[in-house]
This record gives sequence, structure tokens and C-alpha cells, in this order.
Amino acid sequence: MYINQLETPAAVVELDKLEANIARFQRYLDEHGIANRPHIKTHKIPEIAHMQLKAGAVGITCQKIGEAEVMAQAGIPDIFLPYNIIGESKLERLMRLARRVKLSVTADSEFTLRGLSGAAQREGLELETLVEFDSGLGRCGVQSPQEAAELARIIARSPGLRFGGLMTYPSNENTDPFVVETKALLQKDGLAVARVSGGSTPGMWQAHTHPEVTEHRAGMYIYGDRYTLKNGAMSQDDCSLKVICTVVSRPTAERGILDGGSKTFSSDLLGLEGYGLILEYPDAVYYGQSEEHGHVDFSRCARKPEIGERVTLIPNHCCVVSNLFNQVVGVRGDKVGVIWPVAARGALQ
Amino acid sequence: MYINQLETPAAVVELDKLEANIARFQRYLDEHGIANRPHIKTHKIPEIAHMQLKAGAVGITCQKIGEAEVMAQAGIPDIFLPYNIIGESKLERLMRLARRVKLSVTADSEFTLRGLSGAAQREGLELETLVEFDSGLGRCGVQSPQEAAELARIIARSPGLRFGGLMTYPSNENTDPFVVETKALLQKDGLAVARVSGGSTPGMWQAHTHPEVTEHRAGMYIYGDRYTLKNGAMSQDDCSLKVICTVVSRPTAERGILDGGSKTFSSDLLGLEGYGLILEYPDAVYYGQSEEHGHVDFSRCARKPEIGERVTLIPNHCCVVSNLFNQVVGVRGDKVGVIWPVAARGALQ
Repeated sequence: MYINQLETPAAVVELDKLEANIARFQRYLDEHGIANRPHIKTHKIPEIAHMQLKAGAVGITCQKIGEAEVMAQAGIPDIFLPYNIIGESKLERLMRLARRVKLSVTADSEFTLRGLSGAAQREGLELETLVEFDSGLGRCGVQSPQEAAELARIIARSPGLRFGGLMTYPSNENTDPFVVETKALLQKDGLAVARVSGGSTPGMWQAHTHPEVTEHRAGMYIYGDRYTLKNGAMSQDDCSLKVICTVVSRPTAERGILDGGSKTFSSDLLGLEGYGLILEYPDAVYYGQSEEHGHVDFSRCARKPEIGERVTLIPNHCCVVSNLFNQVVGVRGDKVGVIWPVAARGALQ
Repeated sequence: MYINQLETPAAVVELDKLEANIARFQRYLDEHGIANRPHIKTHKIPEIAHMQLKAGAVGITCQKIGEAEVMAQAGIPDIFLPYNIIGESKLERLMRLARRVKLSVTADSEFTLRGLSGAAQREGLELETLVEFDSGLGRCGVQSPQEAAELARIIARSPGLRFGGLMTYPSNENTDPFVVETKALLQKDGLAVARVSGGSTPGMWQAHTHPEVTEHRAGMYIYGDRYTLKNGAMSQDDCSLKVICTVVSRPTAERGILDGGSKTFSSDLLGLEGYGLILEYPDAVYYGQSEEHGHVDFSRCARKPEIGERVTLIPNHCCVVSNLFNQVVGVRGDKVGVIWPVAARGALQ
């Protein structure tokens, strides 16, 4: 089967580029002695997770129990779930997972720790638990080394839990000072910070500038997107994920309508102009969306597309795009090599 | 099973409100002699489509062949697909669908019509085809009554096609004049405009002010959302779809983090402030998103939530939210009544 036989919109991955992206970043982290723990939320495809492990990743990162369950089922042996898991039902699923794979988790509150400890203790398990801290993103995470140290001490004395270290997103200029200070606070408790998990794709090539960080979590590095291009971590040629659309209408001389809208590309803008870059018409502006229509202004393009013409887009944000497709098509040259179900997509919480 | 036993994030539909929304709008259209042809892109659930038909809808509207295939498989007998269907593979699927159900389609170009005619002719079918016109949205659709009349004439002389009428979105102040003018142009050709399909949920209660429109397509009216509230078509009490989230982190005195982000609510803003309305904390601002985190500012709330507390949100845009869930849970009071797979979600193109 050839690419031009695929129905559109189609999410297509160039396998050569995917493999090169996986290999290149692994080589970089290996050279710097940093463990690679890629985030699979970007692809949600067990086969790609296996490619990442085979290249040298120490394990994977998942954001939801549902993702981790799919990955465990597919034989992934080591999973990090850096999310506050709360509620009896989820804790039960977490314990089933912990019996099956090498599992580590995080918490940023005593509330989360109580739940984890109770569940692990009942099951006779010892769960590796890291403390999440806020390096400036303003999402989850404790706000100070003092709070981090206090949670570490609670972990250390909680039955069923083992203090694993620290976690943040992203790795940045605040990360190392926070870790150093927390380590100093914990020294008198005899608590070692064995593992410091940092991450991000935008900052992937600066991972070696964070001596305190022992492992890096990146997700988008395998696919790339306009956001990754904008912040310079990848080149356009590195981008392996494209969305192929068809021009289904040319109602005016300047406007063209694609068969991919917000249910294909999501409405993520991330500070970019437009909802995607059309490779054949780089001067076109994908300025608006309906759910199944992309509204494009071709006025700046010397040549304009015909109805029925196919176009190839680099989306703004690859993670949310793959989450909208049932399948991703792996291609080499103009041939379809493999069709991967996005197995952990829309997975239960 | 009770609502509070559901894992979060959960998409929950209050069945009493859903039924009332379906009945109320059907009654209104019945009173005004307008055919009801609800758009199932909002729910993608065959059971709800059957409820709409049972209440009196003449058929349903789908936006993708994949949706229509799922609905046909579930026994829906009459499907309108107002989208330019292009490409051999899709046209083949369209013909399979046309043999199975009463199918009508639209086109806004001769290119689309050639494809439809060729495919229908080969199959010995006669496909009811409407001309899409642009009433001002600036999406698809011919721009003038002259163009509409020209396409109608092409349909009338194309083997395999039968001219069905006109279609636009939304119904507005331009709709009736466009239809009247097109009818006048077609009179000398002896071509009757039997069906005029208009639509929108924001304008649902003005459907009767468009005497030329014979059928109305609304989608969101069954669920409601913040967008529908903002434009006044529904009240907060009418909103049947909610998303239940858990507060998983309270990293600062004012910030709370929910377990629903852009992969739960989408990043659709639609001109609103924030990504959802938290019913228990109406003064809270859901100001930011990660993929699996909702970032909420509770500083304006006198009481602030505890970690582990559940909250109930009305999303900005119900259609894209249900598309992100594998299942929607129907509830009555505090009890789970039914769990519906979102069967046509992420359906092939």
C-alpha cells in the first residue's frame, strides 16, 4: 500500500526519522551518563515504547494508569507514573500494576502519600516513591526544599513506601539548586536522593547541564512538531509525524478548506500562528477550525491548491494529535510499512 | 453503582436533562413544522441517536463517513452527510452506505459532484445531493445564488444524482434571501428546491424565523456547554453533560490542580475565560492546561477545595469533550444508569 492510497486525514510517521530521533537522543544521554526514560503520552503505542527500550531507555514514563496498564500488558517491564494517584479504585489498579512491573510513582502531598502507603502496605508491596517539586512551571509539586524534605521523611517512615528521590518538570535553572538544597536537608536524616527525574523536549539538549538530574523524560522528541521547531530543539527535517489532509473545498480564490479540523489537530496554538504548517504551501495560513474542517488562507501563495489535492502538515502539538487518531501509519518513502493502533489512547483514567 | 464510585475524569450525562432537551427542541420544531435532523457529531453514541429518532427526528446528520457507518450499523435508517466526500476509497464506502440506508449528501463544487456521480452511476444508485452554500460563516459552500443554481443544474443532469435542495450552516439573516434568489433562478429550469437544511444550536430557538428552511440540524442542544450558555440558547440547569474531576494537588494556597487537562476538555476556548466552569467553585478560574492537568486559581473562592475532593465542570465545548472520552456515563440522581461507549469516536475518516 502506498501513502497516496491512505484515506485522509491520516497521521503518518516516517519510520527512518522516528528511528533516527530515538537513536540520536539516546546517544546524547548515553554520552552524558543520563538515564533515558521517555514519556509515552506522546505516542501511546507499545511498539514505539519497545523501540525506545531497545535503543537503551531504562524504562518509560506514563501519565495515566490506563496508559501504564496498556504498556504493562504489552510487556514493558519498567514504568514511572509521575502523577498523584488518588482514590481507592485507582490505588487498587496501581497495586495490580506494581505486582506486574517495576513501578515507581510520585507524590506532592501527605494526602497522596497516605493513600499510596495504605494500599501498598495492604498488598505487602514496597513502592518506590519520588517527591514532585515545582521548578517554576506552576503546576504540581512542592514549593520549597523544606517541603520536599518533609515529604521524603514521611515516605521513609511510611509502611509500603521507599523514598526514591525527586521529580520535576521541566529541568531548568531552578532544578539543580532545589535538589542540592533538599539533599543537604536530608543528609542528617541519612536519606539519599538516589534518583532525580527531570525532563522536557524543548530542553532535551541541555540535559547535560543539570548535573543533579539522573534521568530525563522527553516525549515529543520522537515526532517533533511546530512547537518543538519554534523552540529550536528539532529541525523541520527531524519531524517524523505529519498529518495528510485533502483540500475538500475552494469556495473563494483565496480560501481552501481541509478535511482536518479541531478533532484532528486539536485547537492547541501554543503561541504559534495558525493550527499547522502546510509543507507544500508554507506561506498558507491555517487560520481557523471547525471540528472537521481546517480553514486556510492561501492568499500569500503564488500557486494555490486544487480541490482534491493532498497536503502534508506538521501539527502544532504532536501529543494531542496522536491522541485524536485511532491509528498512526508508519511509512518508508512512499510505502506504508506498518499501521499502529494508538493502543493507550483515550485509555481509562 | 454510584457517581462517587466513578474514577475521574468522568464524562457524565444526566439522563433526565438529556431526555428533556431532546423532547423540548423536538416539540418546538414540531410546532413550527420544521423537520429535526440532529447532528450526532456531538455525542457519537447510537443509543442517543435512537432516542432522538424516537422523539420525532426525521433522521440524523453525520460529519464523517466513519460516523455514518457506525450509525448505520446500529440501525439508524436515514443519514445526511453534509460534507464534500472526495477520493475513490471514500466514494466506495459512501456507496456501500447508500445501499444500506436512506442517504443524502452535499457538494459545493463540480469536482465533488463528478466523483459522486461517477460512483453512484457505477452502482446504479440515485443519490440525493444538496448544494452547500455559505451563509456567512466563511467555511465551505458556494458564494452566490448563481453558483448554487449552476451546481443544482449539474446535479440534475448528472447520472446517479438527484437534486435535493440546499444546505448551509448556520441559519442566519442571509439564509432566506439566498434560498429565495436561488429558487427564482432555478424556476425556469423546472428544478424545485424541496429541502433546505439549516442549523446550529446557538440559533435553535430562531429556527422558525427562517421560513425557507425546512429542516434544522443542531448538535449541542442535547448536552449544552459554556458556549451554549454564553449565547443564551440554554440555561445552566439544562446542561446535561458534566465532567467530574478530582483535585489531585494543592501546591499553593490559591492553586489547585485537577486531573483533567487538554486531553479531557480540549483546548477550545471559544472566546470564554478559562477551560470550564467548576460548579462547586463558580468563582474559580480554570486558567491553564497541561495534557492531564487542569490548572485552577481558587483565590476568588472563600472556601477552597481539599486534595482528593471531587468537582463537577461544565466544559466549554461539549462536542470535542465527548470525542476525547471512550465512554459517557448516563446517571439519574446519584446513580449510574448506563455506560455508553462513544462508538463513533475517532472513527475512521
